[in-house]
Amino acid sequence: MNQNLNNVESPPIDYFNHLLDNVKTNIQKISFGHGIPRFTPNEYANINPQLFDHSNSFKYTDIRGEKVLRDYLSESLTNKLSFSVNPDENLIITPGANSAIFKSLFLLLNKNDEVLVISPVYFNYIMAIHMIGAKPIDITSNPDSGFQLNINSIINSITSKTKAIIINSPNNPTGAVYKNDDLEELFQLCKSKNIKVIFDITYYEYIHLNNKSNYLSLLKSFDNVIITGSFSKTFGITGLRIGYIATKSNYINELCKIQDTISICASSLSQQILIDLLTYEKLAIDKNLNSVKSSKEILISNLINIPQLDWVQTNGAFYAFVKIKNNINSWNFTEKLINSKSVLVLPGSIFGTQWKSYIRLAYGALSSDDVDEGMKRIKLFIEEST
Amino acid sequence: MNQNLNNVESPPIDYFNHLLDNVKTNIQKISFGHGIPRFTPNEYANINPQLFDHSNSFKYTDIRGEKVLRDYLSESLTNKLSFSVNPDENLIITPGANSAIFKSLFLLLNKNDEVLVISPVYFNYIMAIHMIGAKPIDITSNPDSGFQLNINSIINSITSKTKAIIINSPNNPTGAVYKNDDLEELFQLCKSKNIKVIFDITYYEYIHLNNKSNYLSLLKSFDNVIITGSFSKTFGITGLRIGYIATKSNYINELCKIQDTISICASSLSQQILIDLLTYEKLAIDKNLNSVKSSKEILISNLINIPQLDWVQTNGAFYAFVKIKNNINSWNFTEKLINSKSVLVLPGSIFGTQWKSYIRLAYGALSSDDVDEGMKRIKLFIEEST
Repeated sequence: MNQNLNNVESPPIDYFNHLLDNVKTNIQKISFGHGIPRFTPNEYANINPQLFDHSNSFKYTDIRGEKVLRDYLSESLTNKLSFSVNPDENLIITPGANSAIFKSLFLLLNKNDEVLVISPVYFNYIMAIHMIGAKPIDITSNPDSGFQLNINSIINSITSKTKAIIINSPNNPTGAVYKNDDLEELFQLCKSKNIKVIFDITYYEYIHLNNKSNYLSLLKSFDNVIITGSFSKTFGITGLRIGYIATKSNYINELCKIQDTISICASSLSQQILIDLLTYEKLAIDKNLNSVKSSKEILISNLINIPQLDWVQTNGAFYAFVKIKNNINSWNFTEKLINSKSVLVLPGSIFGTQWKSYIRLAYGALSSDDVDEGMKRIKLFIEEST
Repeated sequence: MNQNLNNVESPPIDYFNHLLDNVKTNIQKISFGHGIPRFTPNEYANINPQLFDHSNSFKYTDIRGEKVLRDYLSESLTNKLSFSVNPDENLIITPGANSAIFKSLFLLLNKNDEVLVISPVYFNYIMAIHMIGAKPIDITSNPDSGFQLNINSIINSITSKTKAIIINSPNNPTGAVYKNDDLEELFQLCKSKNIKVIFDITYYEYIHLNNKSNYLSLLKSFDNVIITGSFSKTFGITGLRIGYIATKSNYINELCKIQDTISICASSLSQQILIDLLTYEKLAIDKNLNSVKSSKEILISNLINIPQLDWVQTNGAFYAFVKIKNNINSWNFTEKLINSKSVLVLPGSIFGTQWKSYIRLAYGALSSDDVDEGMKRIKLFIEEST
């Protein structure tokens, strides 16, 4: 068997989902687990049922994905970046953002190469890097700074084996939105050291501040940059599995080899539906972002009343990475919470072993009322446990 | 960049599709390229448009896929195999059969391991093996035998580095249906040598003989066997990207790591539609298989009239791997054929360098009339070229 798999952890979310599924209870189950937005297309759009009448909905698309989608994406990204993105040369539609990230890491890395990751870190990055036989190097972000980038620590961690850094902003699991000054310094540093940057902008639309900065304009070219993105969070279509990679054309040519071998293409029907949904983009974002902001307010108002929990508020995505005081082991905490209160949160340790006294609360999928109910049960659980 | 990619060829089918797309002509373009069946669900089923009304159609499924699908598959496979398949332990639904094959190879192989492949060979096998850093070892199948397995050649090619063999029957690109005696001998041989068998049964439903043998009953357990399959060809849903892997439970656990990292899950909507289509299975197979048989008759009646082409007839899938006499370079042949006659066939060299005087004709997607028209143009092209 592939020895790299020995270093790959088992997928954590399904494990906790199954725990919650198996709880026998009459009360409503509340999940702060999966990172999904609340509103799916059935709640904001009219999807044309005639999509089912077209043969093309059921047949392979081009490896790079439907031209209409790439044209849209090219225009959308060109408006955000400070250079132009060619739909035929710089883009590939992938079956989800995880697929985009795995394929990008696979493209760049050889065995024993080092990749800088910001800890706490989205577990699938680590799984992908280990699968390829490369080594993730943790750069700890400081909780007190709201999990901002630590540029000095990045500089000190660079070795001759450092091939890439992977970052996401807004961040999963912390919700941090990185400061423009830090990003600019990072991009310059990586360019000067020939370190590739994989920039995962899955949560681009989820910035809670009103004076949203267009941080993508800091990028000057695709020279050493790969952007990975998703349509899942923007449109509430996590299950349709559509993401993308934007980068320079010779990388895209190599990525086509990888995509053909692993996937051939993203689901054609998913792509057709997404084309239909494009006209609803503003509506989808407004509905989901407003819901996230409301849920976050309720989350905060509850956290204030739970002295055992500590959150340095962040302003992106729909995650709160919350410290449980007393240095408790949050894996046990989460298992007991599921069993006694039918509330699912994720233990911090799945985002890095040093975070085992933390939990991640994903509040995007829940109504304000459900967040309120869930947090009240967590408060009760903590009070009963201490 | 990943050095393994240097050994991976560019995806061939898109290249030829684009050539055909770019031909300026008033005549109908005819493609013997992509291996897809003719009838898609819009031509044999009523899909419930209310699928668009359910949030679950747009949300992640379990990593292993929808339970209903696994239950169905477990029953279907248990009926064909001589042992039982547990829906929760032995199955994972993947985003297409290519995904199933890549993930199975990735599971089994380390760098420099050797994998036996039957040449001519489906190019994505070779691309996957090279991507992983392993080595494909060609076992030439004999055209005169209708591209049957050469067991002696397999025995002689086994070394201490041989970790696996990957076979598919009915075969792509030859259409060969392997003899039961040979399969039985192969399975015993691999078991005794601890060589893993990846058995790709994508074309299981496409056997043209009336006394269809149930070759899956030859397998005695999942001990050293991974089955990869597809719903694409059975239901005409290549674009929905749904396949599966059936194997022992500890392999499935490892495959869940790989699936979560690369894909999370297959498209949820695709899975919901497939659940709807299950009741149409017999109808879908009958319609597509009958169409394939009719098209094949017309193909044969045309081939008889083209003395420069030679096909030893095979009885599975919807491929004819046809020799062009005079040892012509079929890459040039196919490019010129596309440009002068708007007919796409694939050059044999993409299935192995030794097959450069062959072409693959995929006749599954075409009506009898289109096969007839396409073959008449090929005949004319050959006559004009010689």
